[in-house]
Amino acid sequence: MDNTKNTVSLEDVKKAQETIKNIVKRTDLLESAKLSEKTGATVYYKCENLQRTGSFKLRGACNKIANLTEEEKACGVIASSAGNHAQGVAYGATMSGIKSTICMPATAPLAKVTATKKLGAEVILEGVIYDDAYAKAVQVQKETGATFLHPYDDKYVIAGQGTIGLEILDQLNGDVDVVLCPIGGGGLISGISTAIKSINPNTKIIGVQTANVPSMQESLKNGKVTPAFNDVTIADGIQVKTPGNITFDIVSKLVDEVITVTEEEIADAILYMLEDQKVVAEGSGAVPVAAILSGKFVPEKDKKVVCVISGGNIDINVLYRVMGVALARQGRRFSFKVLLEDKPGNFSKLASLISEKGGNILTVNQGKVSTGEAINKQSVEFTLETTGFDHIEILKTAMTEEGFQVIEYK
Amino acid sequence: MDNTKNTVSLEDVKKAQETIKNIVKRTDLLESAKLSEKTGATVYYKCENLQRTGSFKLRGACNKIANLTEEEKACGVIASSAGNHAQGVAYGATMSGIKSTICMPATAPLAKVTATKKLGAEVILEGVIYDDAYAKAVQVQKETGATFLHPYDDKYVIAGQGTIGLEILDQLNGDVDVVLCPIGGGGLISGISTAIKSINPNTKIIGVQTANVPSMQESLKNGKVTPAFNDVTIADGIQVKTPGNITFDIVSKLVDEVITVTEEEIADAILYMLEDQKVVAEGSGAVPVAAILSGKFVPEKDKKVVCVISGGNIDINVLYRVMGVALARQGRRFSFKVLLEDKPGNFSKLASLISEKGGNILTVNQGKVSTGEAINKQSVEFTLETTGFDHIEILKTAMTEEGFQVIEYK
Repeated sequence: MDNTKNTVSLEDVKKAQETIKNIVKRTDLLESAKLSEKTGATVYYKCENLQRTGSFKLRGACNKIANLTEEEKACGVIASSAGNHAQGVAYGATMSGIKSTICMPATAPLAKVTATKKLGAEVILEGVIYDDAYAKAVQVQKETGATFLHPYDDKYVIAGQGTIGLEILDQLNGDVDVVLCPIGGGGLISGISTAIKSINPNTKIIGVQTANVPSMQESLKNGKVTPAFNDVTIADGIQVKTPGNITFDIVSKLVDEVITVTEEEIADAILYMLEDQKVVAEGSGAVPVAAILSGKFVPEKDKKVVCVISGGNIDINVLYRVMGVALARQGRRFSFKVLLEDKPGNFSKLASLISEKGGNILTVNQGKVSTGEAINKQSVEFTLETTGFDHIEILKTAMTEEGFQVIEYK
Repeated sequence: MDNTKNTVSLEDVKKAQETIKNIVKRTDLLESAKLSEKTGATVYYKCENLQRTGSFKLRGACNKIANLTEEEKACGVIASSAGNHAQGVAYGATMSGIKSTICMPATAPLAKVTATKKLGAEVILEGVIYDDAYAKAVQVQKETGATFLHPYDDKYVIAGQGTIGLEILDQLNGDVDVVLCPIGGGGLISGISTAIKSINPNTKIIGVQTANVPSMQESLKNGKVTPAFNDVTIADGIQVKTPGNITFDIVSKLVDEVITVTEEEIADAILYMLEDQKVVAEGSGAVPVAAILSGKFVPEKDKKVVCVISGGNIDINVLYRVMGVALARQGRRFSFKVLLEDKPGNFSKLASLISEKGGNILTVNQGKVSTGEAINKQSVEFTLETTGFDHIEILKTAMTEEGFQVIEYK
């Protein structure tokens, strides 16, 4: 490892591959038949969501840990994270037989706390936001002499993530035209682009960020590390306000383009992957597919395009809500209000009509209290399960023809 | 193939493997770290949900088609199905360059009709239930001379499904103690048990059915094919009222035990796999995991146990509902009613209390109309997002201590 420059070499990545091979799983590269058909390219998913601990983070953590001195190992490692980095570090440390301490905000989901403890880490809960946990980790680090494991701005971490690039090349016999890769702090794409560009300089490396946190894109525009944060995102794994210094330098040199996708596009991509490939991606893992589905990245015909699915640790409650939103966007939910004349039989007539046209009532709310609507009318709110926008049109037309006033919610 | 007996040989399965190798994917065998940890055994998922067309059905269909005579091929194939068999036949036929016709009830989900057409089949919609579609297929078959492709009671189909057994043995270097396999008509388990018992007679083969349709279990009890149907099931892929004759004979000889699981257990298993392994299983594909999670099958320590995940084609609307039910069963939804004194400030006090204790309000309904409750009280209904049963207890206690009457919905 050359410590005089902000750079990681192919040799560093190859060494990392050898170092971590007994702990880290070589993940599958699955072809997405539907995305291939849609685009005319051959589109693959590199499934780091199927990696142990559910994300790629284990790779970098393992490589970093393996390269500690014996003295450093004896003091253990420490990290602050409520996400994938926590589990990666915990698992990597435990498998390497060393102690790990993870600081999380006390507001972290219980499931993540439990999972991290189960992987063998000591978990310290502190404060309400990430910054509180980070401050605690810095304090504990000083007291214990444990090594602080940075989630991305570390050359050994970057080299570990780069092993994904070597696997992709190997799985496609060296023949890959484009790699689409999520960017948060930049560790993942730095490693992958180092590995792939060193072997195949013609492969295009495209970074994808959420439009809510376009920090690397802004940094590249400004030619220097620039914090950027517009809003929180369902892609919490790439909700990183400030890219790393090392990663910024590598991305500046090796990444061809950085594009951004919206929250809605990410939700659509999560649902698409669930239906299409039967795999669960978390928000950050779905951004490459979001880039393709939204048309923001258009693969050329007959090219081999790899989407790096960085992780699958989506909270089930979040997934549930994402599915609700995405179903509505696809016309598979229809929410509307009907102004109904307040006389017996009218409601049942409406319910029959909906049933006849194949609408499945999920919720119905009827309130008797006047809210400014015409006297002798009252509003009933429905949410139906529908098969698509055509089906919604059929339902709307049928209700309107029967004299019902339908007000659609958007 | 020995046509004088209701039997399929290892040789038939090996031939099938050679025959279908260019169309069918060798699917991954993933270890479920969490199920291994929970049981002390090593538990694997054989991921036929990641098979092309999203289920194992392609294997049998391809083998059957490849073994047709040239004259038969010229007349094409026909099948009746609104499920995985439809897509398996369509894909297999198209890849083999022959025509396929699929009869479906007109009530089949649009998504399945579209998917089957896209795979190259002609789709005929007829009637409202499966039987109507089957009758239509019989009629069309007579008119066209196409070969009717039975979904399970066919030796070539069974031999095709058996290739899963060969892959499992290969992937575990011949060392497998138990295979848990869904049973509907019995084609899948007949093939797998033929392959595995021929090579490893000591491997236990356990069939799993839904308690709503325990037709093979009943048939085994009675020593003859016996229809059984208690209710519809979310495991629609194994909703088969009458097992096959060939499959019954094979299962009688080779399967060690058939157990049943409930609808709730299936829902829990679907959610568990989604969270655990990041893979989507349809109801029928989740029954082996349901058998383990429910304690109905208890793996012995240190044994190698394979769950055959037969498919992943779950309708997203169904998945959404399954997730809602499973979340409630895990204490991650809390639905209750509070009788509230009807005076200003009371509602806001309640809402603050819920928020303080970390409950996230998903729905709230308040009705002003008296429904037999005490005068000057009114009921407010809530559904909250919670982290587990402990969290629900904390919320209940806090509300009760503040004098709110909480009535929990179960």
